[in-house]
Amino acid sequence: MKETLASEFEILTLLGTKEFFHSFDTAILGKVKEIIEVSERELTDVGSVETNNSALAVVKIKSQHLPKLPVSDFSLVLDDIRDPGNLGTIIRTAEWYGIKNIIASLETTDLYNPKVINATMGSFLRVNVFYTELDDFLSKHQVPVYGAFLKGENIHTVKFSAGGLIVIGNESKGISPAVQKRVTHPITIPRFGNAESLNASVAAAIVLDNLRRK
Amino acid sequence: MKETLASEFEILTLLGTKEFFHSFDTAILGKVKEIIEVSERELTDVGSVETNNSALAVVKIKSQHLPKLPVSDFSLVLDDIRDPGNLGTIIRTAEWYGIKNIIASLETTDLYNPKVINATMGSFLRVNVFYTELDDFLSKHQVPVYGAFLKGENIHTVKFSAGGLIVIGNESKGISPAVQKRVTHPITIPRFGNAESLNASVAAAIVLDNLRRK
Repeated sequence: MKETLASEFEILTLLGTKEFFHSFDTAILGKVKEIIEVSERELTDVGSVETNNSALAVVKIKSQHLPKLPVSDFSLVLDDIRDPGNLGTIIRTAEWYGIKNIIASLETTDLYNPKVINATMGSFLRVNVFYTELDDFLSKHQVPVYGAFLKGENIHTVKFSAGGLIVIGNESKGISPAVQKRVTHPITIPRFGNAESLNASVAAAIVLDNLRRK
Repeated sequence: MKETLASEFEILTLLGTKEFFHSFDTAILGKVKEIIEVSERELTDVGSVETNNSALAVVKIKSQHLPKLPVSDFSLVLDDIRDPGNLGTIIRTAEWYGIKNIIASLETTDLYNPKVINATMGSFLRVNVFYTELDDFLSKHQVPVYGAFLKGENIHTVKFSAGGLIVIGNESKGISPAVQKRVTHPITIPRFGNAESLNASVAAAIVLDNLRRK
């Protein structure tokens, strides 16, 4: 909650217990438009998050207009990530590796699903997630596009460019045919054992770790 | 199911639809002690896995005696991994990276939880998972013990030994104090952004990718 209050979100309403409000200085609460004091029981009834027992904020969702992406850094592209835990974990990992923007296909699971929010561990406040039609988006961005496949250049030896996009595919189908055509650099995570594939959020993390290493 | 039939599990009972049994040759079915033909509806009622519509095997659980661990390779040690999705994903990733043995604390979530089994994507059949009291286990294994902490040697530059153990800590508490004392090599995943931590299964994957790279 401290992270939400300190973020750039516009907070419309803040529901909190008496104890919660006593623990914050008024300067931080000044940016909140409406403050409602409630009991712990009322708060639990309202929220969907299990450990919610001190406060709940109703925030205005940031603009979903696609930003001008930095040409000298990388953004992540998610091609139909369906599992909420995976999406949340990818957002959390993206923040760890300093990725500021994620472009998600329209079929990717909803960012505001409580399971997604929980799995981000607060990173949803600091990483921008935009939903758009990927084929159209990629046709307008002529930058290096790396896509994780089972067959591609070994990420342990690939020389990444200074900026571009990294595409992570759907949990069972991988990267869709339309998006595959937009990938300029197929890459692969080398396998040392027998598993057929990796979890999508794990694959994203390993690609990002290899991208950032000197 | 083909993976289960081809594994070293002892299969006590195999429930399957008529179509399922017609699709297998009798040589493979020969190792099954009891075969029961059921309707698709009956099968769905029995199992807990959503996509179960062709067969269900009742298998004898492998011996849980601790093996003699290979000194020239690595095994994973899980210090209270509680989330079933994380445990399953770690087992799947371990198989990808050729890790054959996982030693889990007694408080680690149960391997036979259906959410764990689902998340392994079949890898639970090929990676051994042993539950034991970790402090006692570690006191009897005088090998290099690498532990993932927020402060330690950068995994991008650490020189891993030829074999040993890699400890992954609990989702919220990290590695417990008793196990910390057994860690001979604290290591850390370098951070390039602002997230406070990484998901436990993501951390395990990144450590394994760095361990295996040449």
